[in-house]
Amino acid sequence: MKYSIPASEYFDRIAKFQARIKAAGLDACLVHGTESDFANVRYLSEYWPTFEQAGVFVPAEGNAVLLIGPESYKYAVGRSVFKPENIKLMLNYRESAEPDYPGIALATYPEVVKTAMGRKKLKKLGLVGTAVMTKPTLDAVAAQLPGVQVVAADEVFRSLRWIKSENELNCHRKAFKVAEKAVQAILNEMKPGMTEFQVIGIAQREIYANGGEYEGHSLYCFGGDRTSNGISRPTSAKIRKNEIIQLNIGARVGGYSSSIGLPVWFGRIPQKQLDLVKFALRAHKYTIELMKAGAEASSIAKKYTQWGIDQGWGDYMLYGPVHGLGIMETESPWIETTSKYKLQENMTYQIDTFFTGDGYGLRWERGCIVKKGGCELMSKKFMEIVDL
Amino acid sequence: MKYSIPASEYFDRIAKFQARIKAAGLDACLVHGTESDFANVRYLSEYWPTFEQAGVFVPAEGNAVLLIGPESYKYAVGRSVFKPENIKLMLNYRESAEPDYPGIALATYPEVVKTAMGRKKLKKLGLVGTAVMTKPTLDAVAAQLPGVQVVAADEVFRSLRWIKSENELNCHRKAFKVAEKAVQAILNEMKPGMTEFQVIGIAQREIYANGGEYEGHSLYCFGGDRTSNGISRPTSAKIRKNEIIQLNIGARVGGYSSSIGLPVWFGRIPQKQLDLVKFALRAHKYTIELMKAGAEASSIAKKYTQWGIDQGWGDYMLYGPVHGLGIMETESPWIETTSKYKLQENMTYQIDTFFTGDGYGLRWERGCIVKKGGCELMSKKFMEIVDL
Repeated sequence: MKYSIPASEYFDRIAKFQARIKAAGLDACLVHGTESDFANVRYLSEYWPTFEQAGVFVPAEGNAVLLIGPESYKYAVGRSVFKPENIKLMLNYRESAEPDYPGIALATYPEVVKTAMGRKKLKKLGLVGTAVMTKPTLDAVAAQLPGVQVVAADEVFRSLRWIKSENELNCHRKAFKVAEKAVQAILNEMKPGMTEFQVIGIAQREIYANGGEYEGHSLYCFGGDRTSNGISRPTSAKIRKNEIIQLNIGARVGGYSSSIGLPVWFGRIPQKQLDLVKFALRAHKYTIELMKAGAEASSIAKKYTQWGIDQGWGDYMLYGPVHGLGIMETESPWIETTSKYKLQENMTYQIDTFFTGDGYGLRWERGCIVKKGGCELMSKKFMEIVDL
Repeated sequence: MKYSIPASEYFDRIAKFQARIKAAGLDACLVHGTESDFANVRYLSEYWPTFEQAGVFVPAEGNAVLLIGPESYKYAVGRSVFKPENIKLMLNYRESAEPDYPGIALATYPEVVKTAMGRKKLKKLGLVGTAVMTKPTLDAVAAQLPGVQVVAADEVFRSLRWIKSENELNCHRKAFKVAEKAVQAILNEMKPGMTEFQVIGIAQREIYANGGEYEGHSLYCFGGDRTSNGISRPTSAKIRKNEIIQLNIGARVGGYSSSIGLPVWFGRIPQKQLDLVKFALRAHKYTIELMKAGAEASSIAKKYTQWGIDQGWGDYMLYGPVHGLGIMETESPWIETTSKYKLQENMTYQIDTFFTGDGYGLRWERGCIVKKGGCELMSKKFMEIVDL
């Protein structure tokens, strides 16, 4: 089985997006991506920037154009599904070191519009990926396209990525299989006295050895009071006995992410912490039961919160129990008490069960595919207490 | 030896930056960083965002304030050199999945200004890191600070990072030692039939096993016509005999990057390609000779270009021979024919010797520290033809 997205699927996505652009009364959308937040651009082109930023200009009718930095032309021609004549080099997508590139010919937005739309006139442009769109691109649009009405249009695009195709699901499933191998290798090899970085190295070795193209997110291995961090990074601190060590290990396959999270320890942890670990695993399994097509997202978040309070652990909850999964390991839509949508078949989520006390915390996490009447777990391993 | 930057050095940096802010006639600067382009923020705080973005608000007089996303408070308190009261959670630094975070208290810029400046009035604000500053932050500044004059101020900050302290140099030197181990492991273990991803896995394993905290940049291993790419990413393609395989392997230590680049092959490559590989190594050594304190950056680029033309390989050159090295593997200042500055002692550079023909290319690369009368190479290994 090939764990990648065929070129035809990219063009289907662009066609669907174009229908939405038209329906929204826009003439075109400008989509943005960066090295760390490249999902929108990769979704439409397979292009995956590094060092530089990138964009895709998609007209309501006409040719989508891939917009890249000055150093990536041959890379983009080889990697993206776009024809060379629909790839343009632009200064505003250059790397943050801001080289001048003397002698390299660069395009401007009016040339892009002409390539995309021919003689049709651009009056109203939507911006997509505004959460990561940077000042050079905003400034270039304003300076090079005077008179064009520019509006934020994330909503025109965002939900296109929500429901996954069978090709996307297969990439996700494989990414979880790779993550399982990486977690298992850690459980086999981790020892007190190793640094957290060294534990990450075990996972990285397995990710790339087993078909991963990259980490699914910046990997987590940290112990002690840093397990109370909702977001964190590993350090050179050593793995110690008798405290929780939090692992979140994810691989990326064909663009699609995974992550498996679990708390482990050597020796014994205090009873209160053990109680929280066990309760959190119950909460994790409780959440899994709530995931099914047709469920109101807000009702899942409310049930989870109320259940946690009823069980006596309300003070240990920080935020929503589930977030979207796709090219980014954390992406739209979240499941929060304020959410306003229903789960649909083949949406993918991370069930992210995080509890934190005073100086400790833990997270059980895995991905699922929403189905009728329930969900398909993309990993069923590591759902039990692991005392190393 | 501890490969990290002491807290006092961060405060020295902030104090120097404050003097520049004052001299520039600004009341404060707002500095931006993202997950992939975090250098400005880490330089001032040691904070290293993941998933979310971050900022530092630095007043001409008063307290610098670290600005983070809603999920990173405990992480930032533990990691950054800032006191908890000088760390603020703001919605505009949230992750691109754009959660609502119901119930979490978030700050606005007027509160940040008050914490930083007390009763002093903010009239003129400089923006720093504008190449990576995103729309939510630009919009929040405009909406929350009406009447404040906002100007781009990258130049007020940028050159602060150019000349490295002994602590910074030691992190860089160690990062190159770790990269050397990773390259050596690849040369020992790489075989035809392995995927490019698997080769990257060998490097990742060695980086983390030997004290690296992360890759120094997205690692390069690719063969065939992709060696002609100035920027690229590895794929699932297999390592083949009789073609150039380009390696660029870098580690990150204490925040500081490295990269070592070399072309290798199994079997034989065509004579024209071998000639280019040999010429490029001469060009690499020629460039090293030009690097010394007091040299005009533009004159190095011009000499390199003219020398390449004189030697008959001018058509194979793409861009400038050297770029800045620091927290980012590629950062300001580049050495280009348009550059307008002189090299100073303890500036750090990557000597990045890239040549590309029709369907092939190669790069020799390593870091150096500018000294009086010459430069200190941070790696002297892998400066010869390697035929595996």
